[in-house]
Amino acid sequence: MTQDNKAQDGSAAPHLEVMPLGGMGEIGKNITAYRYADEIMVVDGGLAFPDSHQMGIDLIIPRIDYLQQHAGLIKGMILTHGHEDHIGGLPYILPRLPKIPVYGAPLTLGLVREKLAEFGIKDADVDLREIDLDQGARVRIGRHFNIEFIRMTHSIPDNAGYILTTPVGRVLHTGDFKLDEEPSDGKLSDLARIEQAGKEGVLLLISDSTNAERPGRTVSEAEVERNLEDVIRNCKGRVFMTTFASNVHRIQNTLNIAHRVGRRVVMEGRSMLKYAQVATQLGYMTAPDPFLTSEDVGQLQDQQILFVCTGSQGQPMSVLSRLAFGNHAKIALRRGDTVILSSNPIPGNEEAVNLVINRLYEIGVDVVYPPTYRVHASGHGSQEELATVLNLARPKFFLPWHGEPRHQINHARLAQTLPRPPKRTLIAKNGDVVKLTADEFKVTGTVPAGAVYVDGLGVGDIGDDVLLDRVNMSQEGILIMTAVLHPTPHVEVVSRGFVRANRDLDNQIRKVALESIETGMREKKRLEDVRDDMYGAVRRFVRKVTGRNPVLIPMIVD
Amino acid sequence: MTQDNKAQDGSAAPHLEVMPLGGMGEIGKNITAYRYADEIMVVDGGLAFPDSHQMGIDLIIPRIDYLQQHAGLIKGMILTHGHEDHIGGLPYILPRLPKIPVYGAPLTLGLVREKLAEFGIKDADVDLREIDLDQGARVRIGRHFNIEFIRMTHSIPDNAGYILTTPVGRVLHTGDFKLDEEPSDGKLSDLARIEQAGKEGVLLLISDSTNAERPGRTVSEAEVERNLEDVIRNCKGRVFMTTFASNVHRIQNTLNIAHRVGRRVVMEGRSMLKYAQVATQLGYMTAPDPFLTSEDVGQLQDQQILFVCTGSQGQPMSVLSRLAFGNHAKIALRRGDTVILSSNPIPGNEEAVNLVINRLYEIGVDVVYPPTYRVHASGHGSQEELATVLNLARPKFFLPWHGEPRHQINHARLAQTLPRPPKRTLIAKNGDVVKLTADEFKVTGTVPAGAVYVDGLGVGDIGDDVLLDRVNMSQEGILIMTAVLHPTPHVEVVSRGFVRANRDLDNQIRKVALESIETGMREKKRLEDVRDDMYGAVRRFVRKVTGRNPVLIPMIVD
Repeated sequence: MTQDNKAQDGSAAPHLEVMPLGGMGEIGKNITAYRYADEIMVVDGGLAFPDSHQMGIDLIIPRIDYLQQHAGLIKGMILTHGHEDHIGGLPYILPRLPKIPVYGAPLTLGLVREKLAEFGIKDADVDLREIDLDQGARVRIGRHFNIEFIRMTHSIPDNAGYILTTPVGRVLHTGDFKLDEEPSDGKLSDLARIEQAGKEGVLLLISDSTNAERPGRTVSEAEVERNLEDVIRNCKGRVFMTTFASNVHRIQNTLNIAHRVGRRVVMEGRSMLKYAQVATQLGYMTAPDPFLTSEDVGQLQDQQILFVCTGSQGQPMSVLSRLAFGNHAKIALRRGDTVILSSNPIPGNEEAVNLVINRLYEIGVDVVYPPTYRVHASGHGSQEELATVLNLARPKFFLPWHGEPRHQINHARLAQTLPRPPKRTLIAKNGDVVKLTADEFKVTGTVPAGAVYVDGLGVGDIGDDVLLDRVNMSQEGILIMTAVLHPTPHVEVVSRGFVRANRDLDNQIRKVALESIETGMREKKRLEDVRDDMYGAVRRFVRKVTGRNPVLIPMIVD
Repeated sequence: MTQDNKAQDGSAAPHLEVMPLGGMGEIGKNITAYRYADEIMVVDGGLAFPDSHQMGIDLIIPRIDYLQQHAGLIKGMILTHGHEDHIGGLPYILPRLPKIPVYGAPLTLGLVREKLAEFGIKDADVDLREIDLDQGARVRIGRHFNIEFIRMTHSIPDNAGYILTTPVGRVLHTGDFKLDEEPSDGKLSDLARIEQAGKEGVLLLISDSTNAERPGRTVSEAEVERNLEDVIRNCKGRVFMTTFASNVHRIQNTLNIAHRVGRRVVMEGRSMLKYAQVATQLGYMTAPDPFLTSEDVGQLQDQQILFVCTGSQGQPMSVLSRLAFGNHAKIALRRGDTVILSSNPIPGNEEAVNLVINRLYEIGVDVVYPPTYRVHASGHGSQEELATVLNLARPKFFLPWHGEPRHQINHARLAQTLPRPPKRTLIAKNGDVVKLTADEFKVTGTVPAGAVYVDGLGVGDIGDDVLLDRVNMSQEGILIMTAVLHPTPHVEVVSRGFVRANRDLDNQIRKVALESIETGMREKKRLEDVRDDMYGAVRRFVRKVTGRNPVLIPMIVD
């Protein structure tokens, strides 16, 4: 048996290894690897968005060193649905792996194709294979992995969990889900299949923890639709509605409402158009009336117009932000308009969304948003729904997934309150190797996992050291001292983000730097030492007179 | 009549001018000036905390140019209560104004004294005058301003609104308030006085808009106390409770709970100790049992200990953050401990608080926080309470205050739904001059208003340009090119926060810079032009190969 034929922990006994490489202990960049003997399969390949300390980063993809190091063992990949945190990393991930079969439902693959095309990755470079959720899709990956997709409701059509049957037993992974009893496309979660699996025996349940802290049930999309319709019916002027572009159900419902209340729809914003286009082409979205453009609506009265636009998270370049700040090239908001935010701010976006809302009020438009108006529902189930799945699946072992520690631990606690709690629950982290047999369920090691930062054209060329510099400069600014030693020593001082241009202070700093240099030269110190002395002298001086600690860059030109 | 004897809008007709210099259209740095003829009075002098775009700023104080320009007219100041957003700016403001009488209740002035002492401002430098809220405190400022303080409930004792009687009529300003029916100190809001004023005639109501978007009533402190006691009674191990240090009522209640459940209290954190000390000295806080120190508790069992500590907002240097990240010198959290966050994150602090909560879960302590546990209540009234005040005061004119536009406008709308809506409501901004007579209520002009940034020892030496540099550097980093022309031209490249050290890229950049310099020198361009050419060439090159736009600093040493 070669190294590669052994399981990750080196043991040869037949067991399954579950390796979350992203999405465990966090919300975002979901990717999970399963390994049995010499075979690996992968689930999803998502991205995450930076938090406020990851300054200037465009997006974050998971580290896949483990997959790259064991590329020869990877037999295939499955995709649960078409959201960015599940497929957004694929343009970075797939080119780094061998060409493996990638299974997904039509809308999911449609969105993947669109995304790959943007990166210049051709269809022939990948092996996308469509599955049909209505036909109880089953696929086999390698010799050991048998997968049965299960339809689950979420905020996008074609969303799936799956049952993975392996030689050690059955793993049920919910995928992202809520148990919507009135889903927009009428296609319910397949609870019967989960119940059946529970009867046959679920060794391990991996379940969505996003809303494990919320009591009760998550509001149905149908109720959101009714509330949206109430609001829109009462609007006298133009309506501007925003939500996540990927919330295909919400947008479909909005199109239906527009038709019923006699408003024509204009779609605005790149991502909104992209999702609508893919969903429409594949038959997942049907516009009862043809879309108009913002030029067309000149013919219509205000109460005949509904804009569906990007910007629900306060993104500065989105349509709604440009409207709020008066920077949109073609459309200007005015008193009498209504803006509906059919969304909540994702944690971290509160300030940006608040800014947009205040700006809208200042313009004098009506602004409608939760919780005052119930025009949004999460795509993830709350405690009752989580309990339902736990009760039906009756797993022996439990891995709360798709959540930060607070969500995972509350999900674990919820499971313990149920009539048949799991025998064992693990709170895992990205990179943990979770060993699973009929009797064993434990973390036996770790593999590399973490964040790769994407910034501009660079992937992985920004590390935490670079981010730390950014944080430091953002707090205190930067001060550059250039000392020229010959013919007569003198020092130039340039700063950014430090204090307002201040010639006196600059002169004082120059003097302090020059003195330390002259001393150093007199004492014939080495250049590095002269530079260090200048650095120290200026740091002490600046701290004393300004109380600040800018990033200091000392340079010496000999 | 000299310029200074004229009202701000230049008109000589007798009228009052209301000039919000801070706290109008925002939550924070409250300060309002009133002017009648040649007399000015000031209400409060608060500070605000920076938002995420105001990078590295310690705090923000209001611009008081108007007051400084009319210093000779200022006859006095009143303070409504001792919170930072009402008194935190005084160490910066009072030294810039003439020595005027400053009226406030004992706790308010106690906190002001403490604060001034920290800045080395002596009692003799200011003229603080105590008023007694229990005695229906009335003061007269100048010839035209008669002030009657009104007790209102809030999250700190000695909180007041006031009725300002002027020659044009009566202004009722609520100050910060909720209508707590079970306040911790048993002292209710003086609604009878508000009702009486309403009968006598309120020309203008200025009222707290913080919670104008929240239906119903704000939960009482007494209910929070009961919920806190329930939680603490059920704790088996040590309890760590955090809230705003300034929430004297909450802390008093916690001390009472500790006594009832048999726990001894340790106070931890500088601001927590400061508020407790001032409040205790002045009789506003009574510890049923003497405080212990963290050294003393070694004698006690876990269930006999309750720490009250700072950190409810996830501040990195606070006690709770240090506990969560294992950086506290004396105390280490462990499984079995319970941490209670008796607070909500202030907008902008969500990420920091979330990080602390997750860390606490990872340590394995129990974490208790809203909304799952109702262990916090806002200090500001919700719609029913706002309506009560509007109904009792029956103002002719209305100025929704202490809120962002979303809060002001919802407060204005609420007023319109009431049986006797105001004749006119204005949504004002900082710097607006609101002219008030018996019949007139309008914005007639503006005075300077805005933010002064305090950073380190500097007050006002950081402007928006400096902040913009900080934002830019935080997004893209900085790249410094130093070109030395003689004897042979060469270029040094240094960067921070740009990309990970990359010799190839540095060399390429150096080459691009050098080429442009050599061309410039050959063509005998001026030095500035050579520098600009280098800047442009490097900018284009960097953008092309990295997709990024670092802040570029070109320097030439001739």
